[in-house]
Amino acid sequence: MMAVNFEVFKDFCAVDGIELGITQAGVRYQNRDDMVLIQLAETAVTAGVFTLNAFCAAPVTICKDHLAKTNPRYLLINTGNANAGTGPDGYQNAIDSCKLVAQTTGCSAEQVLPFSTGVIGEPLDMTAFERGIPAAFSDLSRDNWERAASGIMTTDTLPKGFSTQCEISGVMTTITGISKGAGMIMPNMATMLGFIATDASVDKSVLQTWCKQLADASFNRITIDGDTSTNDSCMLIATGKSPLVISDADSAEAQQLFSELKNAFQVLAQAIVRDGEGATKFVTVEVSTAASHKEALDVAYTVAHSPLVKTALFASDANWGRILAAIGRSGVENFDLEKVQIFLDDVQIVENGGRCVSYTEEAGSAIFAKSEFAIRIQLGRGDIEETLWTTDLSHEYVSINADYRS
Amino acid sequence: MMAVNFEVFKDFCAVDGIELGITQAGVRYQNRDDMVLIQLAETAVTAGVFTLNAFCAAPVTICKDHLAKTNPRYLLINTGNANAGTGPDGYQNAIDSCKLVAQTTGCSAEQVLPFSTGVIGEPLDMTAFERGIPAAFSDLSRDNWERAASGIMTTDTLPKGFSTQCEISGVMTTITGISKGAGMIMPNMATMLGFIATDASVDKSVLQTWCKQLADASFNRITIDGDTSTNDSCMLIATGKSPLVISDADSAEAQQLFSELKNAFQVLAQAIVRDGEGATKFVTVEVSTAASHKEALDVAYTVAHSPLVKTALFASDANWGRILAAIGRSGVENFDLEKVQIFLDDVQIVENGGRCVSYTEEAGSAIFAKSEFAIRIQLGRGDIEETLWTTDLSHEYVSINADYRS
Repeated sequence: MMAVNFEVFKDFCAVDGIELGITQAGVRYQNRDDMVLIQLAETAVTAGVFTLNAFCAAPVTICKDHLAKTNPRYLLINTGNANAGTGPDGYQNAIDSCKLVAQTTGCSAEQVLPFSTGVIGEPLDMTAFERGIPAAFSDLSRDNWERAASGIMTTDTLPKGFSTQCEISGVMTTITGISKGAGMIMPNMATMLGFIATDASVDKSVLQTWCKQLADASFNRITIDGDTSTNDSCMLIATGKSPLVISDADSAEAQQLFSELKNAFQVLAQAIVRDGEGATKFVTVEVSTAASHKEALDVAYTVAHSPLVKTALFASDANWGRILAAIGRSGVENFDLEKVQIFLDDVQIVENGGRCVSYTEEAGSAIFAKSEFAIRIQLGRGDIEETLWTTDLSHEYVSINADYRS
Repeated sequence: MMAVNFEVFKDFCAVDGIELGITQAGVRYQNRDDMVLIQLAETAVTAGVFTLNAFCAAPVTICKDHLAKTNPRYLLINTGNANAGTGPDGYQNAIDSCKLVAQTTGCSAEQVLPFSTGVIGEPLDMTAFERGIPAAFSDLSRDNWERAASGIMTTDTLPKGFSTQCEISGVMTTITGISKGAGMIMPNMATMLGFIATDASVDKSVLQTWCKQLADASFNRITIDGDTSTNDSCMLIATGKSPLVISDADSAEAQQLFSELKNAFQVLAQAIVRDGEGATKFVTVEVSTAASHKEALDVAYTVAHSPLVKTALFASDANWGRILAAIGRSGVENFDLEKVQIFLDDVQIVENGGRCVSYTEEAGSAIFAKSEFAIRIQLGRGDIEETLWTTDLSHEYVSINADYRS
């Protein structure tokens, strides 16, 4: 299995106010990093967005609760066990893991945010946490981002990270983040996670608004198989260690920082697609001239989730009838078929409800042969645009998801 | 590829008032039956339900138009070309095919309903219709149901039919039907079709209401890959040749006929699933104690369409976390997780938001090893129930849909 046009990021910049510790706690497997502790400065402000799955995991519930009450000082991430579908015991175990961090570090349990990813439905082995948390704490270092990117992996084939420095209002500002995720859920292996930090100081309400907006433009616009995990979480941290202070979201420096963060979020989200289960293609689905965001997304997701479109992508087969049929069943009412136009990159395939007169099978096949291209759909109903990123459906996807436990 | 627990139906009873003719018209391929003409008695009443895909094919549009204006005398079905995504020329070709039937048979063009299934986006070869229609007409016979079942196949591996006779109010009544469909769309090969006839006399408005209700309990409750075709059509014909007259849908004889028709519709619909692309499992998804039909269907379809649930079915892996996660992302609001219960046949896997205490991996695996079983989900919110039927996602599915044109 190979990721699509994926280069492992190496040049991490430390973020003032953040230290990371990694250890082999043995949550499920031996001899692999499976626990990461992230320490935040007292000045840090944290925002988060979480899975909308009704069966959200115990740590997600605890995380949201603690985030509402405190400015967190520690984030604890374990792989190997999602602590999902575990009932009341699962909640107690998530709380106990926070207490263990509190005992080790001297903060309160509510200042700890827990994140779990891995098997669903198995009880957490708390002895691994008793072992791992002190070990991760003693490993804390500002230069551990690269190891942390590997430490949060489950079935990812490659670690995912991004880092940049840019001057904003004369202040050199750092943005660094890591993410994980391959399918939305692997054979009981769950979860998309993203942790992105900047050393700027950002007002808490601005940061929370941004986190939602940024996730909606990145992690909430990727889909591999449409299966939302029970544990998905994306955290945005502003450590407040640089002189750059953002309190007004409309200021020029706020907009510049937002733009840089958006790029970081999108790189980290797209890395999950590029490393998607069995992925051989990285495909952008762009829907424009829609009447609403909902209909733009309905069309885009229907195309991106269609098994027939996805197998055609895998086959490099410019089977445009499947794209047409997927758009048609997306639930948008009162379509004017005459106005719908479909392009592969810049090659138009559909106009006036049928095949474009200028289209040739050769031109379509040349695009489908590429490892990375865009399906661009114009609805001719308004001026709204939405974009998402997806992969193909390959034999490898079936193998990964069917053969894992057997 | 083998269909799941599928026995080819052989004992067709003719329906008074219906004759069928089959021919090799050469619409796309040579040396295979690809055109079926069905002649209805003047006394026959016809009802239909059609795809909701906004990009519905030209023959579907013409079919709906003609059905609204007349009591049809002929149904013309061709395989090899769906006449979908063909723009204005497609409409003209569909109308012209009706005119050819009218010329051959002496009816009016509006008394002909056209049905097409096959490649999307290619113009119809009208010379095949000029050749085929007279040949099919001269082949008309009341005993041709079995050949017609084969004549409407595209990528189906087996012909699908059902026939029964039952006494209703002292009148021996015949119900006979055929259907086709394997994926919702194969590599440009489209369409579910169903044609079911009885010799009873049924009031037209009752028949139309029934056709919708029956399709909703059968063809609209099957899903292989979630891709609704541009050409799906289901027709219910009452020839009025037997002394049984149904004008009041609430009468005892009406309810008995409805019940017999429902069985026929479900057998024909389930046959499509059993012969689904790459299917190795036939799975019933039953959602009960829901607050509404919409939420019951949302849950059932989310589970049935989840690639992770489907690959687990293929692997015979009792990976119940995937079922749980699919239910959780189905969009039902204010779930009380404590009340959700999940069973595999009679083996309970989930209670109180976690794994059932009595559940064992062995018990779950024993069910998943079966070729046919039910995933039963109780939501604990009301008294509504919905059932649908689906298959697994196998390597064969990817091969069929990815390798066909390559």
